[in-house]
Amino acid sequence: MSTCAADLAPLLGPAAANATDYLCGQFADTASAVDATYLLFSAYLVFAMQLGFAMLCAGSVRAKNTMNIMLTNVLDAAAGALFYYLFGFAFAFGTPSNGFIGKQFFGLQQLPKTGFDYDFFLYQWAFAIAAAAGITSAPSPREPSSSPTSSTPRSSRGSSTRGVPLVLVHRRLGRRQPHLRPAAVRVRRHRLRGLRRRPHGRRHRGALGRAHRGPRIGRFDHAGRSVALKGHSASLVVLGTFLLWFGWYGFNPGSFTTILKSYGPAGTVHGQWSAVGRTAVTTTLAGSVAALTTLFGKRLQTDHWNVVDVCNGLLGGFAAITAGCSVVEPWAAVICGFVSAWVLIGANALAARLKFDDPLEAAQLHGGCGAWGVLFTGLFARQKYVEEIYGAGRPYGLFMGGGGKLLAAQIIQILVIAGWVSCTMGPLFYALKKLDLLRISADDEMSGMDLTRHGGFAYVYHDEDPGDKAGVGGFMLKSAQHRVEPAAAAAAAAATNYQV
Amino acid sequence: MSTCAADLAPLLGPAAANATDYLCGQFADTASAVDATYLLFSAYLVFAMQLGFAMLCAGSVRAKNTMNIMLTNVLDAAAGALFYYLFGFAFAFGTPSNGFIGKQFFGLQQLPKTGFDYDFFLYQWAFAIAAAAGITSAPSPREPSSSPTSSTPRSSRGSSTRGVPLVLVHRRLGRRQPHLRPAAVRVRRHRLRGLRRRPHGRRHRGALGRAHRGPRIGRFDHAGRSVALKGHSASLVVLGTFLLWFGWYGFNPGSFTTILKSYGPAGTVHGQWSAVGRTAVTTTLAGSVAALTTLFGKRLQTDHWNVVDVCNGLLGGFAAITAGCSVVEPWAAVICGFVSAWVLIGANALAARLKFDDPLEAAQLHGGCGAWGVLFTGLFARQKYVEEIYGAGRPYGLFMGGGGKLLAAQIIQILVIAGWVSCTMGPLFYALKKLDLLRISADDEMSGMDLTRHGGFAYVYHDEDPGDKAGVGGFMLKSAQHRVEPAAAAAAAAATNYQV
Amino acid sequence: MSTCAADLAPLLGPAAANATDYLCGQFADTASAVDATYLLFSAYLVFAMQLGFAMLCAGSVRAKNTMNIMLTNVLDAAAGALFYYLFGFAFAFGTPSNGFIGKQFFGLQQLPKTGFDYDFFLYQWAFAIAAAAGITSAPSPREPSSSPTSSTPRSSRGSSTRGVPLVLVHRRLGRRQPHLRPAAVRVRRHRLRGLRRRPHGRRHRGALGRAHRGPRIGRFDHAGRSVALKGHSASLVVLGTFLLWFGWYGFNPGSFTTILKSYGPAGTVHGQWSAVGRTAVTTTLAGSVAALTTLFGKRLQTDHWNVVDVCNGLLGGFAAITAGCSVVEPWAAVICGFVSAWVLIGANALAARLKFDDPLEAAQLHGGCGAWGVLFTGLFARQKYVEEIYGAGRPYGLFMGGGGKLLAAQIIQILVIAGWVSCTMGPLFYALKKLDLLRISADDEMSGMDLTRHGGFAYVYHDEDPGDKAGVGGFMLKSAQHRVEPAAAAAAAAATNYQV
Repeated sequence: MSTCAADLAPLLGPAAANATDYLCGQFADTASAVDATYLLFSAYLVFAMQLGFAMLCAGSVRAKNTMNIMLTNVLDAAAGALFYYLFGFAFAFGTPSNGFIGKQFFGLQQLPKTGFDYDFFLYQWAFAIAAAAGITSAPSPREPSSSPTSSTPRSSRGSSTRGVPLVLVHRRLGRRQPHLRPAAVRVRRHRLRGLRRRPHGRRHRGALGRAHRGPRIGRFDHAGRSVALKGHSASLVVLGTFLLWFGWYGFNPGSFTTILKSYGPAGTVHGQWSAVGRTAVTTTLAGSVAALTTLFGKRLQTDHWNVVDVCNGLLGGFAAITAGCSVVEPWAAVICGFVSAWVLIGANALAARLKFDDPLEAAQLHGGCGAWGVLFTGLFARQKYVEEIYGAGRPYGLFMGGGGKLLAAQIIQILVIAGWVSCTMGPLFYALKKLDLLRISADDEMSGMDLTRHGGFAYVYHDEDPGDKAGVGGFMLKSAQHRVEPAAAAAAAAATNYQV
Repeated sequence: MSTCAADLAPLLGPAAANATDYLCGQFADTASAVDATYLLFSAYLVFAMQLGFAMLCAGSVRAKNTMNIMLTNVLDAAAGALFYYLFGFAFAFGTPSNGFIGKQFFGLQQLPKTGFDYDFFLYQWAFAIAAAAGITSAPSPREPSSSPTSSTPRSSRGSSTRGVPLVLVHRRLGRRQPHLRPAAVRVRRHRLRGLRRRPHGRRHRGALGRAHRGPRIGRFDHAGRSVALKGHSASLVVLGTFLLWFGWYGFNPGSFTTILKSYGPAGTVHGQWSAVGRTAVTTTLAGSVAALTTLFGKRLQTDHWNVVDVCNGLLGGFAAITAGCSVVEPWAAVICGFVSAWVLIGANALAARLKFDDPLEAAQLHGGCGAWGVLFTGLFARQKYVEEIYGAGRPYGLFMGGGGKLLAAQIIQILVIAGWVSCTMGPLFYALKKLDLLRISADDEMSGMDLTRHGGFAYVYHDEDPGDKAGVGGFMLKSAQHRVEPAAAAAAAAATNYQV
Repeated sequence: MSTCAADLAPLLGPAAANATDYLCGQFADTASAVDATYLLFSAYLVFAMQLGFAMLCAGSVRAKNTMNIMLTNVLDAAAGALFYYLFGFAFAFGTPSNGFIGKQFFGLQQLPKTGFDYDFFLYQWAFAIAAAAGITSAPSPREPSSSPTSSTPRSSRGSSTRGVPLVLVHRRLGRRQPHLRPAAVRVRRHRLRGLRRRPHGRRHRGALGRAHRGPRIGRFDHAGRSVALKGHSASLVVLGTFLLWFGWYGFNPGSFTTILKSYGPAGTVHGQWSAVGRTAVTTTLAGSVAALTTLFGKRLQTDHWNVVDVCNGLLGGFAAITAGCSVVEPWAAVICGFVSAWVLIGANALAARLKFDDPLEAAQLHGGCGAWGVLFTGLFARQKYVEEIYGAGRPYGLFMGGGGKLLAAQIIQILVIAGWVSCTMGPLFYALKKLDLLRISADDEMSGMDLTRHGGFAYVYHDEDPGDKAGVGGFMLKSAQHRVEPAAAAAAAAATNYQV
């Protein structure tokens, strides 16, 4: 506003100069309302990703573990809200800070203040749980969920591992306040500058956990060959994927956090409104091209078309473009998506060779495609966009004439994140493994966790009223022999029909 | 705009004073567009709750009643649109009114006018059907749906019972126009002032209907012990719950109906944009804490973790915070959610003891948690927020130093709503029971209403092409004996496989 | 902005005239941000229709074809993005053009420029794929999907048939730039003016393809009587329908593409913000009334209430109102919806008589109800709304006192579209039929395409760990005989259980 007043006062002339504050105040209030509308609805879209993850995860696991994995998704959002309110937001965004971790805004004290209003908290919370969902949901059937401490490894682990990205977020975003330049990264000790917006590298932790844990029973046969353990519902996978696509429009364009900001001469297309739209377009193109590439790439490997593979390819494209989405041209996004599909196919082939089992391909997708995306930004970031969004003098992409400075920073960033995650998470998972908390028992795994820990099966498609006369017909006749006391658990009986 | 002109004209000075109208007109038009954008997308979010209810209801009932309950959800939205257009909006918002019920705007005549544009109608319609969905969907399997008059008790009942909340809405919102202060309530005869934004008490009607109706067959065994009749799909329950969470961001923050309004010095964070964000945060926290509390609370009662219970706890937290969401601090929302979880657990225990059967726990959730939320507002409403939103001089929360005046008004409000609902709905349900229209026949209940009234089962997972050669294998062989004429109903045959 | 400067400069007076550019620039930037927010979130809603189509299609086909049809939906969005980026947007909107087809903006070159920013591309892409989804998804089980060229008839066909609507879009929208009047249609040779906003007629192509193809096996018995082949999941149908309803709020009100535009005296309700809201209301009413009419209309034909029929009726109402949604009164929308329900019922009766089989009723719905909607606009368009939105002097509805000029134009428009589609698509489908590419083999159709082409069944509700001891019980015992090598395909075994 002071900029507005400084600009406007001399223009109005002495007679009307008194109107300066009034007019600038009106413009500022309008901007507050427009930006809040933009940020809040972006936050709601990001929140919708949580629903997308829940459906994707549910559809990707076997029916007997559906209740378990959906519980983790609901708790990720709920526990995430409480902990992000108590200290997460403070760690990540508290200013002033000690340069390593924030130390203000615990329990949202001191809010609202300029640049840190409630809508910003809501957006960052939705962002944090969306990122966390990728980690916590993936390994479901091999993760114990039956005791408070272990059923919420996503909350207890959340408190430790979420501490990690919070520090990373703080470091990365430290220079963004109060103007929240959305991709400014500076690894401070190194005095190197990089562009990176999303901590996809944090997903490596998920990979660490999974590697410690070993594959599901039956995932590889006695000869060590890979056996597909299909998820139980392709419809839920497609539903979840489309919801993630829908929500990614909050995740990527929404990361600008404001939309009413001019980059050039007033009254032209040069402004954040255009950059936001361009970001939505690059996101769309990268995901779409990755999906198409995966369709044909996988067709070469197998003898059929597979919608679930295409969905994973699509999400890999989104993961890859997320780092550079705001600073690359649409044609570069096409390249990004094309390469990310092959990165995912390669990572999956490597995982199968290493007997690394993950029903959601999360480590391959977020780790592999995410790392490619960080490098991609170092190659294709365009000078004009970098300067509009991050300020003048920033390094840009190698292939765009910017030299190797940004690429080097991006590589270091990948190494720093990988190192940080290994140092903090490696010992944790090692300890969990030693304590036998990292994997459920073989019996639980065979029966399905829904039956053993969650009180029953997720689905009951054939109803048996306990008052039913008598089962007639092959299917129900057999099951009638297993009929347990109604008071015990109708649910268990239903599950019996499927499991026996 | 006149405020703008009055403020700006003297500031501009005599030479430029002619510009006042132009500038103020520009600001006003901008505000119209910003507020319309905010309100329309909020309305769309609230509409998404209808989808959430449909999926939640579908997943919570047994498969054999899925078609029936989903039809009620679609009709709730469709009949709601027609009736709200014809007279609902007029009853609720028609001004001038006789102080009891509105009598303008029938069929949207006289729209648009200041404060009553089409977006406002759309928002209020979405709000009304979302509230109605809670009532109408719950009791599905015991409600006859086979004749025009009885299959739309939600429309015929809608016309009568929706008349009720419309009057309530009118009374509550009477003082809101034209500035639509979103929580102003004044029970006029009593000259008492209360804050309450949502007619959750109206859900008591649902409880009344259910109590008259009695539990489902098999819900309690011969010894009177409770037997869980699980819903048929936990995935649909989680999908519906997340959609309701998503839509609640339209329901609560959207109720401000505008976002571009300054509360303090221009150009600061003090404005409705901040209050809107804060409302989204309190909503999120209350639901999340309620979910977490329910998780551990239910674990103490049963021996497993249950995602469906957590979903109900979450929705209870949302129901509780809805009354006070805009006028309490985030820390108070945490308390609100914590208590609401125990209210729900207690209400469910009471319902089981009273043999009150409701597959969606709607009366417990909206009645119990909703009533708690009304009291909670009387305890924790903060003076500053109340005055910013409702105007100076309003009473505020007992625990916030505001004395007992607001709390007393809130209690009276609960009693008035309960009394009104009992007087109007009690005789209706008594009459329906006497006419034997309140509960379907035992045969229909055992077979499932989808088969008897809705032309077949909702799911056909195994396809039988009528041109199929011959059923092979135990499952289909048995069913082949029951093959009915294809022309009669392939659907019925499919259902037979499950039901026999 | 030049308008603003021309208006404001004289008002400010000589002393303050220098402020004109600054103030007008601020207003213009604000408008850019508001309109971009409005258009982007509208685009996201339209994108959500893609998810709605996927779920509607999945639920409407038999379980054995679910994977196939969902793949087409994902590819429709993904291939649509790539092709619309490469040339689709250029064909439709490239200016200057040769009057027939656009020839600029290939690969988004020259973007952004005034009136053609990235958000506009994103909206038009979402719009194009939503329209294409109606064509490509419907005929799934009779369309070969096993080779690159034939599994993407939606892309290869897309490139040819999408060429058609692109030309149509270009012709229809040619006069809309740069101010994007959202319903301006002029069939240029005829010098006739019509209002029509959505190329619903393009769906006739779908009908053409289906007519060439013939009904599914078993759809009509040996005596030629109609046999219902129910979709496999009513829950997915309702989910998809509600998502389409949700997304239609982006499709219809969003088509204005801007919201901050005054129609009358500044600072009043007369502006695009009000027209946008009215459009949302007419859309809601037409769909709702069509749903209610279908409910009772179908009840007269059959002996049950059917939620799937109601969903189709609802969508028919939306298809009908889409042409005239912005220029008719709410009461006219009620008439539109009422008639469209009977149009759909009649079209379905005709289709059954002609043995025309379409599990989604897409030709009846989009062709029949869409054509009715075009005529309806010629009858009920209101002068005031037409002039506000399209400019003064435009013809309006016959029943609103506007004479028959608009109605004649609308009829010619229907004929032109039908003729164009017949001339371009008729030969294509004839060639495909001769080449035997239009219909899958009877074996594939009986087994289901998911098993034969897509690597397995979409659902696995009973898990069989390959490490499982031994199948016990009637259901699984039988299936155990069909157990194939785990390494071969666990998925195939699972599907066997259902199919045998």
